[in-house]
Amino acid sequence: MSLLVVGSIALDSVATPFGETADAPGGSAVFFSAAGAILHPVQVVGVVGSDYPLGVLKALERRGVDLTGVQQVPGESFRWKAKYSYDLSSRETLDTRLGVFAEFRPKLPDGFRDARYVFLGNIDPDLQLGVLDQMTHPALVACDTMNYWIQSKNDLVLELLRHIDILMVNDSEARELSGDWNVYRAAHWVLKRGPRMAVIKQGEHGALLVSPDATFKVPAYPLQEVFDPTGAGDAFAGGFMAYLASTDDLSTPNLRRAMVYGAAMGSFAVEAFGIHGLENVSAADVRARVRAFKDLVHFETGEDHR
Amino acid sequence: MSLLVVGSIALDSVATPFGETADAPGGSAVFFSAAGAILHPVQVVGVVGSDYPLGVLKALERRGVDLTGVQQVPGESFRWKAKYSYDLSSRETLDTRLGVFAEFRPKLPDGFRDARYVFLGNIDPDLQLGVLDQMTHPALVACDTMNYWIQSKNDLVLELLRHIDILMVNDSEARELSGDWNVYRAAHWVLKRGPRMAVIKQGEHGALLVSPDATFKVPAYPLQEVFDPTGAGDAFAGGFMAYLASTDDLSTPNLRRAMVYGAAMGSFAVEAFGIHGLENVSAADVRARVRAFKDLVHFETGEDHR
Repeated sequence: MSLLVVGSIALDSVATPFGETADAPGGSAVFFSAAGAILHPVQVVGVVGSDYPLGVLKALERRGVDLTGVQQVPGESFRWKAKYSYDLSSRETLDTRLGVFAEFRPKLPDGFRDARYVFLGNIDPDLQLGVLDQMTHPALVACDTMNYWIQSKNDLVLELLRHIDILMVNDSEARELSGDWNVYRAAHWVLKRGPRMAVIKQGEHGALLVSPDATFKVPAYPLQEVFDPTGAGDAFAGGFMAYLASTDDLSTPNLRRAMVYGAAMGSFAVEAFGIHGLENVSAADVRARVRAFKDLVHFETGEDHR
Repeated sequence: MSLLVVGSIALDSVATPFGETADAPGGSAVFFSAAGAILHPVQVVGVVGSDYPLGVLKALERRGVDLTGVQQVPGESFRWKAKYSYDLSSRETLDTRLGVFAEFRPKLPDGFRDARYVFLGNIDPDLQLGVLDQMTHPALVACDTMNYWIQSKNDLVLELLRHIDILMVNDSEARELSGDWNVYRAAHWVLKRGPRMAVIKQGEHGALLVSPDATFKVPAYPLQEVFDPTGAGDAFAGGFMAYLASTDDLSTPNLRRAMVYGAAMGSFAVEAFGIHGLENVSAADVRARVRAFKDLVHFETGEDHR
């Protein structure tokens, strides 16, 4: 069951209280595929400039990422620069240079059009809709967006909701989109507008899945050392979608499990800068962390044996 | 197994976006016992002024709260006035009038000294230590505190840690006490200073139990309607301690269950103003919500049947 991601391929310069990176590989498609490929092959559609360090992409390729859909074009790669607060709870974007990403028009290679599982990373909703037009028969489409598009292209975001299965956004985006500060109500607002599920990412507080059949919460894994929250949400999406693609099972119990696989990937992602936290993680490591999540939240009601 | 709480009995004037109260019964001992009494009898030690509406306390008495330790003395009752932000995520204290609470010196009735389960609500750590001096053989002592005492009487708070079993504080207090913004590390800091468990309350994000044997996370229950967060932490403590007292079982599985009973009480508390959310809740209602929590977080790892 093929898994496709369309998103940004960036060079991130990030400062946290524990160090900083300069022009480190990042972007939604990179974090998604670095996490997802641990569980399942990933097809990537994106664009890089002439200055992009291709060795990093080659390393992803060796791990099962199909880069046929990544174009390299003349110009500068997308660059993003940000600084986190002392407790990592907030960040300030210092600079965004779109470079070749400004002219990005995703074009799916023929072999990608029949992908069954699709993740539309945070790009212009017009382009996200354009990707869906190129797909033949996706089984599950999940989609991210951001406040910028919710404000500037609200109609297109609402149109997009009618064509996707899962909206996967963070809590502030869900609030902005619905106009409701209560994220649980915001998730129900989303369900009325097309998607059959809403996944609300809550950073250090985990993630919430809301569908007509289930409300499921996975916390974030308690870590003594968090170095860099960048990309945790996209790593979550990569783990979630790759687990679904690898099992090809959309039952509620499997969706719950996919949430935990996503949270496990998010927890690895934040343990080092950029994608380094995901580089040496095996599928067995992920399964072990999923078991640790089970231990973290498991309880018996006390009535189980009565 | 008797359960004792020592804490404030207050009159709260609270404004939220959904309404406001004026001189409504509140305070840590009131929220604790309103929740705890649903599961187990509670003995209360506290003080009220000559202006306190005793009918409210009588209503608690009918529900199994022993008020032998509540003194009424001449003067004004403790009053607290606060206003919540539009999304209930923060609040501003507008006025605090200690009244007779300023001279509160908890004195345990003879029948209370042998209580087995003890909760020391947020009062001067000197007084909390004084309560422990009056106890004969408590089995489990849990204790709350606040930033004011952590700053102004740090030595006494540290002394207190050497004499209690569970420190139960919110995340900002754990951070302030330990000097560490990572709440998981902060909990481990606490464990090195005496208590065998730390319970970190995280408001709308639930609570975390950390002991040498277990790390357990319970989320907050996702509610479409939250009216007033006041007292949720004390209701949590009441549910947690009353469940432990009623079962008299300090095994790890039972401590996990107690966390969920606490979270269930917190979820009822916020559904109405003041203690109204807890007034008509039965033990069966609490058990039903505990089962709902189970459904909220339950997943199988997928390896369970292999």
